[in-house]
Amino acid sequence: MTTSHALDQAIALTATGLHTYSGATSPAYGNMVGPFGGVTAATVTQAVMLHPQRLGEPISLTVNYAAALADGAFTITARPVRTNRSTQHWLLEITQTDAQGEPATVLTATAVTAVRRDTWSVDDEPMPPVPSPDSVAPTNIAPQVAWPKCYAMRFITGTIPDRWEGQGDTSLLQMWVRDEPGRVLDFPSLSALADVFYPRVWLRRARPVPTGTVSMTVYFHAGSAQLAATGSGWLLAQARGQVFRNGFFDQTAQLWNEAGLLLATTHQIVYYKE
Amino acid sequence: MTTSHALDQAIALTATGLHTYSGATSPAYGNMVGPFGGVTAATVTQAVMLHPQRLGEPISLTVNYAAALADGAFTITARPVRTNRSTQHWLLEITQTDAQGEPATVLTATAVTAVRRDTWSVDDEPMPPVPSPDSVAPTNIAPQVAWPKCYAMRFITGTIPDRWEGQGDTSLLQMWVRDEPGRVLDFPSLSALADVFYPRVWLRRARPVPTGTVSMTVYFHAGSAQLAATGSGWLLAQARGQVFRNGFFDQTAQLWNEAGLLLATTHQIVYYKE
Repeated sequence: MTTSHALDQAIALTATGLHTYSGATSPAYGNMVGPFGGVTAATVTQAVMLHPQRLGEPISLTVNYAAALADGAFTITARPVRTNRSTQHWLLEITQTDAQGEPATVLTATAVTAVRRDTWSVDDEPMPPVPSPDSVAPTNIAPQVAWPKCYAMRFITGTIPDRWEGQGDTSLLQMWVRDEPGRVLDFPSLSALADVFYPRVWLRRARPVPTGTVSMTVYFHAGSAQLAATGSGWLLAQARGQVFRNGFFDQTAQLWNEAGLLLATTHQIVYYKE
Repeated sequence: MTTSHALDQAIALTATGLHTYSGATSPAYGNMVGPFGGVTAATVTQAVMLHPQRLGEPISLTVNYAAALADGAFTITARPVRTNRSTQHWLLEITQTDAQGEPATVLTATAVTAVRRDTWSVDDEPMPPVPSPDSVAPTNIAPQVAWPKCYAMRFITGTIPDRWEGQGDTSLLQMWVRDEPGRVLDFPSLSALADVFYPRVWLRRARPVPTGTVSMTVYFHAGSAQLAATGSGWLLAQARGQVFRNGFFDQTAQLWNEAGLLLATTHQIVYYKE
């Protein structure tokens, strides 16, 4: 990890109290309105990682995007509300100063950290058979926003439609993805990668309707040593929607490293218009 | 809905302030230690439903089981921390008085409510082809705990193993399920049904190791009218694990009504021993 990587700059936090940190949005991860939700999730994870009272490592994270972050400074509150023998429960919140000068909630989150132990283990969702990263050509897409430039993506199936004529018939996306430039994987970067998929409804409908993630949950199935061993290599990222109804769709997704280890499973519910 | 149903008794809450409710655990939904996690999730949902400042209906719910609830009284705090034009974000907490007489956090939760709108919609996870509820024989299992008696279950695949000899090779469970006695479906009962599956690791390993749900997320894809139209009919409930590793496994699950409408998708991460 080099401290000059754009992700490290974006998730940099300064402790302002035992349970509070200050940070600022980063133009490198800019989205349509405010920053890429993944980098906000990464920043929340970083607050947990930095906290001096942390027990163990992340097991689960739920972030609720209550409002678009405004470009600029924000405050994170990270509080361990219950510490057991081997698990710890966290409440987190991001606030920004509103037009009246008052702190307003823009994100809520919960996290669980725990001590991983040696147990019987099995992967029941094997990595699907896909071509190797080197054999998949990069897609020549000029993104409209900044954040996709922070990732290398090699689409296997589910490339962003090249015409928006309502011809979609599936929401399945599979791609190789990694930070660009490379960066050794850790919990914050994996949190960001959980949100790296462009909106499923764009693919399913082949229509670029306005969308916004409302809530995302990440389950971390690997410890820091396994993440570090993955290094700056490619991850296979797979996502699909199960239901699109009345203005909200869900997404279920998996992230494997190139060796086939399922590092994270993740879900989100997303607002869409029309 | 009749107020004499055991579920209505279990989720009964008394407002003790604008954002606080008092409740008590119910022996009918007792589990090994404390109550069935599903009924606790239902109680959290009920706190949102009762709140006079609620906007819209539940879209997502995440409950984090920080400690086993002790049998007896508890306090729920339910606070809308951000209200937008059509969505609202909630922070919830259950506390119980600890041995020192202080309130201790036993559960944290977040929820999103929203106004559903008419939009383009599609179900992309069709109900799997299964025999009708009437053609599936009830399983003659004598549960060790109280709560399964509050449900009628018709196992299609993934019945609780009848011998614990490590012979398991899949975690897939499919069953028809409903409240017993019948009760018209609503958001609290659907929240409980999201947790109705016995632990995936018991099936996958055919070993009844100790387990406990750490965090559960429910995405609600139907509004109250669609839930009411489902009535007290059977739901097809499907669940499987994707990863079992180092003391935690995940579960991804779906709940359809008999007409084939996908009412909820749900995920959880579960602690297991050994």
